Amino acid sequence: MTRLEKQIQFIKEIDRLKDIYRRSYLLSQNRKENSAEHSWHVAVKALLLKDHADCEINVGRVVEMLLIHDIVEIDAGDTFCYDEKGKLSQHDRERKAAERIFGLLPDDQEKGLFDLWLEYDAEETDDARFAVAVDRLMPLLHNLGTEGKSWKENGVVKDQVLNHNSKTGKSSSRLWEYVEAKIIEAAEKGILPERL
Amino acid sequence: MTRLEKQIQFIKEIDRLKDIYRRSYLLSQNRKENSAEHSWHVAVKALLLKDHADCEINVGRVVEMLLIHDIVEIDAGDTFCYDEKGKLSQHDRERKAAERIFGLLPDDQEKGLFDLWLEYDAEETDDARFAVAVDRLMPLLHNLGTEGKSWKENGVVKDQVLNHNSKTGKSSSRLWEYVEAKIIEAAEKGILPERL
Repeated sequence: MTRLEKQIQFIKEIDRLKDIYRRSYLLSQNRKENSAEHSWHVAVKALLLKDHADCEINVGRVVEMLLIHDIVEIDAGDTFCYDEKGKLSQHDRERKAAERIFGLLPDDQEKGLFDLWLEYDAEETDDARFAVAVDRLMPLLHNLGTEGKSWKENGVVKDQVLNHNSKTGKSSSRLWEYVEAKIIEAAEKGILPERL
Repeated sequence: MTRLEKQIQFIKEIDRLKDIYRRSYLLSQNRKENSAEHSWHVAVKALLLKDHADCEINVGRVVEMLLIHDIVEIDAGDTFCYDEKGKLSQHDRERKAAERIFGLLPDDQEKGLFDLWLEYDAEETDDARFAVAVDRLMPLLHNLGTEGKSWKENGVVKDQVLNHNSKTGKSSSRLWEYVEAKIIEAAEKGILPERL
């Protein structure tokens, strides 16, 4: 297979991410969000919010990370962030998926995207931390705009959301200030229960 | 409104792009593709195919262009590329949409994205030409993988597809060689009619 044929094969394969649905509802509430359109949304968000990062980040790398971060879900499915059982096997399932799917690409691109996915998954570099912070903001905005529809359906409570988003503070104090205030406001309004 | 509040307002507004449907079907044929997930797919594609550009391009700018190129469809709708009547008013409708939607952002980001959208729309710079070439490749791949479902539904014939994609040659001779061969192959297989 030529380099271009391998690339086209990968491009066709990742069309399947459009059929992977998350727990969040669109703000229109017409349906749940899929992981492909979610990846678009967080990439745009990173471009816009880059100035709020506390460390210097390479926004091109952050965008690239966010564009490919969910591709593993084609094989591994979307693991809900409050599914403690599912999260135990998440890394292994996703790593296997990354090997198969990025493995469709020419060697240099396979290595590039696999390493970038590992970096995102490890959440240790400044770029990865900012990407994760941006990724986690989205379910919050979707829940705030839909009266907590997905939180309620999945029995999610305030401390879980605070805990899940708290790492945002390691990357952007400005974003964390916003996120924390919104979570507290959601609890006060009764759209995010204090406890079950 | 603070800078962050304006940005969040824009981020929430563009959620609506997930409810704008195109004529193309997903390869799974489960449904038509929406413009948000399409924007994700073409951005990933640009990252992968950048080496096939004949001129030196700034792939970060190309990705950014592709991430925002369809946002105007929130107000202007998706104009089918073979709808000659719709195309007459397309630029004016989309420009008005760009003014309203990018106008939600802080001034510097409004100007940045508006100018980038204008550059894409004009198809004159090397970055814009490559972005357009990558954008036009996708309906071809979707039609090839679905027995020409969207071509057939919309009465599209070979010369229209050749003509619509021919500008690809101005940006990447390698991609145009691939695209042209695939269009001819589709016509030979009978999934793309020579004429109506």
